[in-house]
Parts: sequence; structure tokens; C-alpha cells
Amino acid sequence: MIIVGELINASRKKIKEAIDKADDVAIKDIASNQVKAGADYVDVNAGVYVGEEPEKLVWLVQNVQSVVEKPLALDSPDPKAIEAAMAAHNNSWGPPMLNSITMEKDRWEKLSPVIANTEMKIVSLCMSDAGMPTTAVDRLKIAGDLVSGLTALNIPLDNIYIDPCVQPVGTNDSFGIEFLKAVTETKAKFPGVHIMCGLSNISFGLPERKFLNRIFMGQAILSGLDGAIIDPLDGPMMGTIAGATALAGNDKGCRKYLKAFRAGLVKA
Amino acid sequence: MIIVGELINASRKKIKEAIDKADDVAIKDIASNQVKAGADYVDVNAGVYVGEEPEKLVWLVQNVQSVVEKPLALDSPDPKAIEAAMAAHNNSWGPPMLNSITMEKDRWEKLSPVIANTEMKIVSLCMSDAGMPTTAVDRLKIAGDLVSGLTALNIPLDNIYIDPCVQPVGTNDSFGIEFLKAVTETKAKFPGVHIMCGLSNISFGLPERKFLNRIFMGQAILSGLDGAIIDPLDGPMMGTIAGATALAGNDKGCRKYLKAFRAGLVKA
Repeated sequence: MIIVGELINASRKKIKEAIDKADDVAIKDIASNQVKAGADYVDVNAGVYVGEEPEKLVWLVQNVQSVVEKPLALDSPDPKAIEAAMAAHNNSWGPPMLNSITMEKDRWEKLSPVIANTEMKIVSLCMSDAGMPTTAVDRLKIAGDLVSGLTALNIPLDNIYIDPCVQPVGTNDSFGIEFLKAVTETKAKFPGVHIMCGLSNISFGLPERKFLNRIFMGQAILSGLDGAIIDPLDGPMMGTIAGATALAGNDKGCRKYLKAFRAGLVKA
Repeated sequence: MIIVGELINASRKKIKEAIDKADDVAIKDIASNQVKAGADYVDVNAGVYVGEEPEKLVWLVQNVQSVVEKPLALDSPDPKAIEAAMAAHNNSWGPPMLNSITMEKDRWEKLSPVIANTEMKIVSLCMSDAGMPTTAVDRLKIAGDLVSGLTALNIPLDNIYIDPCVQPVGTNDSFGIEFLKAVTETKAKFPGVHIMCGLSNISFGLPERKFLNRIFMGQAILSGLDGAIIDPLDGPMMGTIAGATALAGNDKGCRKYLKAFRAGLVKA
């Protein structure tokens, strides 16, 4: 399970304040804490800085990588910001991840030349100009377009992370199950490809969202999810990932579950 | 989701003491509380009373049904105890459930004449004289034998509750996933049949068992489980069942989840 730590996002008040004040210590702390908690990638997003996004994103990349020995997820739809961040990124711990491309024509056309022939990991949202799909069938169609398009750009299957895009089950009873079916079917249809998502949207509009999010994580891991964009400081969620992975048969000797227990992440 | 309340089992110290003292009030309280918490059936088990099991089971049936308007799950492998309990059972709220038959030759031969041509719900464990199966394939074979055998006894598919038998994931990494596959595949192969189980065995030998049990319940419901033999007074488990059912697309307007939330069962 690949964990992308989502906290360094300038749309969060605390992060924006830190960037505004050039408070590198605050940013470094949040980066370090996420990695200590198990993040494999640290997401960096400076999307709120219209006109200044490239320089702010580069500042985040440099400061985060000054304290963590991990690759970053470069979180922007703007090719200029991505190119600047790629140039600043230290690849010693692996190539960065792009978060994210879609099949929307404008986004695809702007980002595809930037990522072609690179070793980047590509988070690929199942979205097109027709909007966000609601059924497994529609998601599979877009996933197919993404896989074809990305392989034509010389991106290996192992670097493709399809995000089938979670929609709130409070809006439509079928939105949970159609997403989960899409996870299973995408993995079956495109062997070698990964499935990654942020899944908190599932519980939008319902009470006790974290409770539902954890159950859904367990179901998504069973369905084949192998990456998640989450808050790694959410102990019960990290414990749930460990438990669900063991139950799904992917944790030799339940070692990661036991490790999560010893770290205090697992509490009934 | 059909909930069978498991608490009235004489192998539990508190229950044995109540039966020993003919403390009907204690038994009635536990029965009422389970039904208030959502039990559709109340399990009754007097298996520890060797030689007296029929009379003790009848005493339980009569006392429990004097306070709850629900059918019971008659929990014994002994045909004499089952026959006595069936005769004492008030069918006003539906026929009782047998917990349970297996394909073990001796058990099958003794219980099959008792249940033939009845309207009982039959919990049917995937066990044979070859022992307990460990793979989905082996479970499916026994499930097939159970379905053939029970339909030959004139039991309708809708009254068959296959229990694929959970085994501890701490013993073998594949025991969780093979059980879950068996749930999905049994439902697909024998449409109309139900799948029911007690699942706490999954976490045997591991720490924070209730934490793992809840994740596994969410995964089992996604896989097609539609009945569970559990402690209905376990609020977080009942909340998990509601949440998992909504996420799997079987809770119109998330109403049962919202009801569980209002009842205080859902807490992140």
C-alpha cells in the first residue's frame, strides 16, 4: 500500500499561513511527521497562489526534501508549476509523482508533453470533458483511455495510478459500490496498473465521516486499492489500512498489523 | 442483514449461572436487550447440559419467547434437543432457525429427518468429515453438497444460510481472503441462498480483535454476507454493519446508517 501524505496543501489555512510567512520550520515539521507516520510520498500543493504557483511549489519541494528522504507528489494541473517542481525535485529517493492528469482535453494536452518519457508516477483521474463518471462501466472506459494515452507517452504500466474518483454515497446509494466495482474491474482489465485515490469524499454529507471512511478503506483494499492519498497522522485510518491489508491476505505473518498495533494505531 | 443475537449460550458463565438458578429474569433481560439492539433471531444454546439439554433448551425457548416477539435460533447438534425446542417454539413471529447442520455424516443423518419438509431456516456449516475447508474451492464443494442435500429435503433456497466457516488469519495469511472469496462465489453459484457466519474467529490470536473483526465485517458485507451471528450489544459492530451495508449500496437513502448514528452506534 502506497501512502501519499495529503497535509501540505495551501488550501488548508495552517499551510497557507506557513507559506505566507515563509515559515519553513512549520512545513518541515508537517512533512517529517507524515513520513514518520508512514507516508511514502509527501504531497505538495500551492494551487491557491494564482500567478505565483510555480515559485511557491518549488519552495515547498525544496523545504520538504531538506528534511525527508522521500519523493514528493507534485499536486497541480498547471504544467508550468509541474515543470518547475520537477526541476527542483531531488530524485535520490525516487522520481516524483504527478497529482494528477485526467482525460479532460485541455488538461491532457497541457500535461502530457511534460510527463512523456519520464519516470514519474502518474495519478490519473477517471474524468473527461463529459464530467465525472458515476458507474463502473463509465469509469472503465476512461481508465482505458488513460492507459492507452499514457502508454503512448512511454509511461510504463507500473507507473500508472488510476483514480476511479470516489463520489458521495449520501448523494446516490450506488456511488460506493460502483466505485468499488471499478477498482476490481480496472485491476482485472489492466494488469500491472495501480489504483489510488483519496476516499474521504465517500462520506460527504453524512455524520461521523471518519467512521464510514475507515469501513470504506477496508472494502476498497479488498477490492484491489493499492494506494491512498490520506492524512497519515490519522492513526485509526493507518491501523485500518494495516488490518484490511492483513485480512486481504497481503501481510506476511500479519507483521504490519502487529507493527501498527505496537505503534498504538490499532484500538478497538 | 439478518442479525442473530449470540449471547444466550450456556457456555458463557453468566448464562450457565442463570440457567442453574432458574433465573428467568436474567435470561429475559438479555433476550430483550438483544432484540432492542436489533437482533432478528435470538440464539439459545444449552449444550453444556449433557443428558439434560432438551429440557434446558425448552426452558430457554419458553422464557425468551415470553418477552420477545421474535423467532429463535435453536443452537444444538442434538436432534432430541432440537425436536423438543421446535415443539416449544412459538412460530407466531416466524419459524425457528436451526444452528446448525454440517455435511459430517453423523450430524447430517441425525438432523436431516428433523428438518425435512419444515419451514425452518437452516444454518449450514461448510464442514465435512474431512474437517474444515481452508480454501474457497473446498468450501464451494461442501456448499454444493449442502444445497443439494437440503433441497432434496424440501428446504427452499431462501431458507438455506451457508456458513463458509471463518478461520484465523493469524494462523495462515490466506484464511481471510479465501473465506471472503467463498462468500462471493457461493452467492454467485447458488442464487437465492443466504450467507451467514460468526466471524470473530478471524482475529483469534491477534491483538485488538474487535478492531479487526469490524474491518472484516465490512469486507464480508461487500462480498455478499447477509447474516451474522454476533453480540448485538456491541454498538460499534452494529454501526459498522449499518455503514458497510450503506457503502455496499443496500441502504436506501442511507436511512439505516442514519438511524444507527442517531442510536449512538456510530462513533469515529
